[in-house]
Amino acid sequence: MSDEGTGSGVDAYHLQVIGEIRGPYKEKFGIPRQPGLVDVECLLQLRTGFDRPEMFEGLEGFSHLWLTFVFHDCLGQGWRDRVRPPRLGGNRRVGVFASRSPFRPNHLGLSVVELLGIEQQDGLRLRLRGADLLDGTPVLDIKPYLPYVDAIPGARAGFAPGPPTALQVRFSAQVRQKLAGDAPLQRIIASVLAQDPRPAYQADDPGRLYGMRLAEVNVRFRIVAGVAEVVAVEPVASGGSGRG
Amino acid sequence: MSDEGTGSGVDAYHLQVIGEIRGPYKEKFGIPRQPGLVDVECLLQLRTGFDRPEMFEGLEGFSHLWLTFVFHDCLGQGWRDRVRPPRLGGNRRVGVFASRSPFRPNHLGLSVVELLGIEQQDGLRLRLRGADLLDGTPVLDIKPYLPYVDAIPGARAGFAPGPPTALQVRFSAQVRQKLAGDAPLQRIIASVLAQDPRPAYQADDPGRLYGMRLAEVNVRFRIVAGVAEVVAVEPVASGGSGRG
Repeated sequence: MSDEGTGSGVDAYHLQVIGEIRGPYKEKFGIPRQPGLVDVECLLQLRTGFDRPEMFEGLEGFSHLWLTFVFHDCLGQGWRDRVRPPRLGGNRRVGVFASRSPFRPNHLGLSVVELLGIEQQDGLRLRLRGADLLDGTPVLDIKPYLPYVDAIPGARAGFAPGPPTALQVRFSAQVRQKLAGDAPLQRIIASVLAQDPRPAYQADDPGRLYGMRLAEVNVRFRIVAGVAEVVAVEPVASGGSGRG
Repeated sequence: MSDEGTGSGVDAYHLQVIGEIRGPYKEKFGIPRQPGLVDVECLLQLRTGFDRPEMFEGLEGFSHLWLTFVFHDCLGQGWRDRVRPPRLGGNRRVGVFASRSPFRPNHLGLSVVELLGIEQQDGLRLRLRGADLLDGTPVLDIKPYLPYVDAIPGARAGFAPGPPTALQVRFSAQVRQKLAGDAPLQRIIASVLAQDPRPAYQADDPGRLYGMRLAEVNVRFRIVAGVAEVVAVEPVASGGSGRG
């Protein structure tokens, strides 16, 4: 890290990317809005210089980690003084610092994730569960989760006091047959759709057909009366990024 | 925020300081090693451009916040692959990413603090409690604490499963008399000393006299057999920074 200016007059800091996320979320649409709600695994691949095993000694004793990362896909869109949180139906605005929106100054994200393992493969990588992070997300820091300071179950949380209500998820007969041999993919799709990935402002357009890239497939679904129905699952055409 | 390079090849991000901490911790020595353990208040003064009231709308509904900040006083000292956490007596080393040490890549800190109020004074500032932050600490982000995702009371935490044992704190008769009219200062001193601010490697040098700058005073104390005794409290000479 380097800084600009001296003493307390520093205006900006220069932060290095220490690693990247490798996971099934290939586009922003569909990513759960908070970590931990979805049983999806990913990898954090450390970059050279930040991948020495001694930097991670003792980390295996912790069940959970904090990741500080950059919402890199939102950089071009700047930030706003007020945002419309999905939790408020997309109608009401709140201050950007009262939200976890990516459209914030510095575009910093913070997620608690479960640590499944530390693997010395292609350098060093962490196997994680519950991350709500786009494939390619640049990570700036990793810290152990300390329940005696970080866990405040009784904290008051304004407009987001609890998790959103999960949707029921159904697969069409055709999709069920297609996914019969791939339980992990079924689980990821069900888990993500249960969180209602629709933009809040479209939640009153029932029956609309959506498409979402997840892992190596495109998922087509619609949502009617609290039920998400998967109507098609197709392999992604090679070379297509699917990112919107 | 701006980046360097394009696409997934970005190596560094440029983050702006959005505000600074104004509080009683004038030097690193004495700062509690984790937030929330000490009943000390401070202010987060927002910088111009990040101090518009609409950016904080709805924040008053949250009892706790996350601050992402820079350990600015450690920048010059770089970072290490392994560190000696005070929790391990300063003898055993662990990987830097298994610790919350400031001597880490990017020198990023993360603290949960209690929000006491939002004040429109000298621009805009947040009144906070429980922050373990040095006066002047540059802040990069503010997020609401969401208990349904952030609170994991059952998380397993390796070598730091619970808070350290607090010391008993006593004031000498002379100091008691001197602080008789200043309950808040008494409370801050007692609260900070209870956390045992000694460097871990000195914990087996009983009776050693320590000095620590806190708020506008120098505090002299010694620690013997689990008891911290405050032997003197003197005003800081004007112009002296007291920072080591």
